[in-house]
Amino acid sequence: MAVYTEVSDVDLRRFIAEYDIGAVLSCKGIAEGVENSNFLIGTERGTFILTIYEKRVAPRDLPFFLGLMDHLAARGLACPRPMAGRDGVVLRSLCGKPAAIIEFLDGLWPRQLTDAHCPGVGKALATLHVAGSDFTMTRPNALSVAGWHRELDACRERAHEVEPGLAEELAGELATIERAWPTDLPTGVIHADLFPDNVFFKGTEVTGLIDFYFACTDAYAYDVAICLNAWCFDDQHHFVPSRARALLSAYQEVRPFTAAERAAMPLLARGGALRFLLTRLHDWLNRPPGALVQPKDPREYLMKLRFHRTIPGPEGYGL
Amino acid sequence: MAVYTEVSDVDLRRFIAEYDIGAVLSCKGIAEGVENSNFLIGTERGTFILTIYEKRVAPRDLPFFLGLMDHLAARGLACPRPMAGRDGVVLRSLCGKPAAIIEFLDGLWPRQLTDAHCPGVGKALATLHVAGSDFTMTRPNALSVAGWHRELDACRERAHEVEPGLAEELAGELATIERAWPTDLPTGVIHADLFPDNVFFKGTEVTGLIDFYFACTDAYAYDVAICLNAWCFDDQHHFVPSRARALLSAYQEVRPFTAAERAAMPLLARGGALRFLLTRLHDWLNRPPGALVQPKDPREYLMKLRFHRTIPGPEGYGL
Repeated sequence: MAVYTEVSDVDLRRFIAEYDIGAVLSCKGIAEGVENSNFLIGTERGTFILTIYEKRVAPRDLPFFLGLMDHLAARGLACPRPMAGRDGVVLRSLCGKPAAIIEFLDGLWPRQLTDAHCPGVGKALATLHVAGSDFTMTRPNALSVAGWHRELDACRERAHEVEPGLAEELAGELATIERAWPTDLPTGVIHADLFPDNVFFKGTEVTGLIDFYFACTDAYAYDVAICLNAWCFDDQHHFVPSRARALLSAYQEVRPFTAAERAAMPLLARGGALRFLLTRLHDWLNRPPGALVQPKDPREYLMKLRFHRTIPGPEGYGL
Repeated sequence: MAVYTEVSDVDLRRFIAEYDIGAVLSCKGIAEGVENSNFLIGTERGTFILTIYEKRVAPRDLPFFLGLMDHLAARGLACPRPMAGRDGVVLRSLCGKPAAIIEFLDGLWPRQLTDAHCPGVGKALATLHVAGSDFTMTRPNALSVAGWHRELDACRERAHEVEPGLAEELAGELATIERAWPTDLPTGVIHADLFPDNVFFKGTEVTGLIDFYFACTDAYAYDVAICLNAWCFDDQHHFVPSRARALLSAYQEVRPFTAAERAAMPLLARGGALRFLLTRLHDWLNRPPGALVQPKDPREYLMKLRFHRTIPGPEGYGL
């Protein structure tokens, strides 16, 4: 949660006037999204999100993210569509930083997960993969195996503060995963961060997907593995088999797995758990003392990682 | 900026259903207001602010704040009106804390002040004073002279970190102000925090006043003095006489000062500067290291305090 950039009313009015969306009526900084400054903007024509991209987002990636959202929305996926200025340009500049206006998507994300959320997520993820399959831009996944090495190196000396022996456990895990990591699975655009706060529901129906700022080109099945981790464990971080079965079968109704994808699922789930464990560990060890918002506890993903290690094969997920 | 309380979608839907404002469509935590958790809520009937009152607001004060907003809005002041539930009750409970839904008021506050903003503020403040004159509830000003003693005591030992000798200067100042502090000026409801971020403008016209959570019963002229400090200095914290003349004369077109109010203005302005200096000093000395948002520099109000000390009489403000 953050608003890092203060926008003056004069600059804001001038910026909004570059679009054909009416005059600005209101502007509230919103406390979601840790990477950028986000403002909810009311204009004479509707509600929009103004995002000012801060330093954690590489400007060279922005055309990929914005182009992807536009591509997916044009194919009927319920995701926010970036707005172009009067000159047709989407990626603009405000307060000396890259900035864009995105349609505001109504919706609430589920704070308390149940089995009933999982079919919707599985179907939405497969639909995203199919809709993105003819998107021509690519972006390497910065948080795949090479990135995990960097994260682990940065945390190695202080990992024991979370649990004694953690650095050694993670180093062993990373070596094992890296040796077996599949490189020949079907690949395309993946969301790579489809956690509950990025999925809007009305009842059990998914009404929108948001936050494409980790999207990249990687194995579809790895995206599924991230969702297994994010949606198929209970509040105590114990695996819920019925959720996994619901998510995976709904996914396969839209896009069936190949044999290789099915076989790789335990390893991909282990890798996905390691990826979020490492970034959460990094944020945890580097949290500002006294900060209002505590970063998420990395031990949640340590439990998940250890669980996946016990899975004998894809049938452990009901596959 | 803060959202201290996480509201589950289930709790939110249940809470909103207690009102006749349609079903909830969206909910975004907003990054304004340091005291409470605020959410911008879209429903089938419009946009609203959901405020969950956190521990810095005393629950016993909430009927005063909410009743005042309702009273002022009913008298035509452009301020957000609290919504009552279907049972007529305004102050409700969510996540075990006091909570209320307030109308959302469109508007932008001016980030860059000019002389042209000052007549609007003066007129709006006087209109607020007149509109509140028949409000029957009262609330003592917790941040008047007695409160300043408490604030100074809490900061005395470390005030030198901001400037050597500051504790001694402030103790002397407080003693001088306290001896002369007027107690017989016209009194009623004051806003007590009418800073630029609480005043919406369209061009030079004031379209709304927000954030009544410091409102209290005190001298009207003291509220004017707070505005002199907040609106009539430039970015370098130098007094701008033309702004003060504009603000004061617009105020007096709606509510002329008594002779005693006019005479007291330099002392009230000094007191108002001391009040914000002390609370900023407190926040500054107690800021969490590494926090994203730095509290405001208390030296701004030290400059203003020293300026007011040089004012020979009300004519120093163009009065």
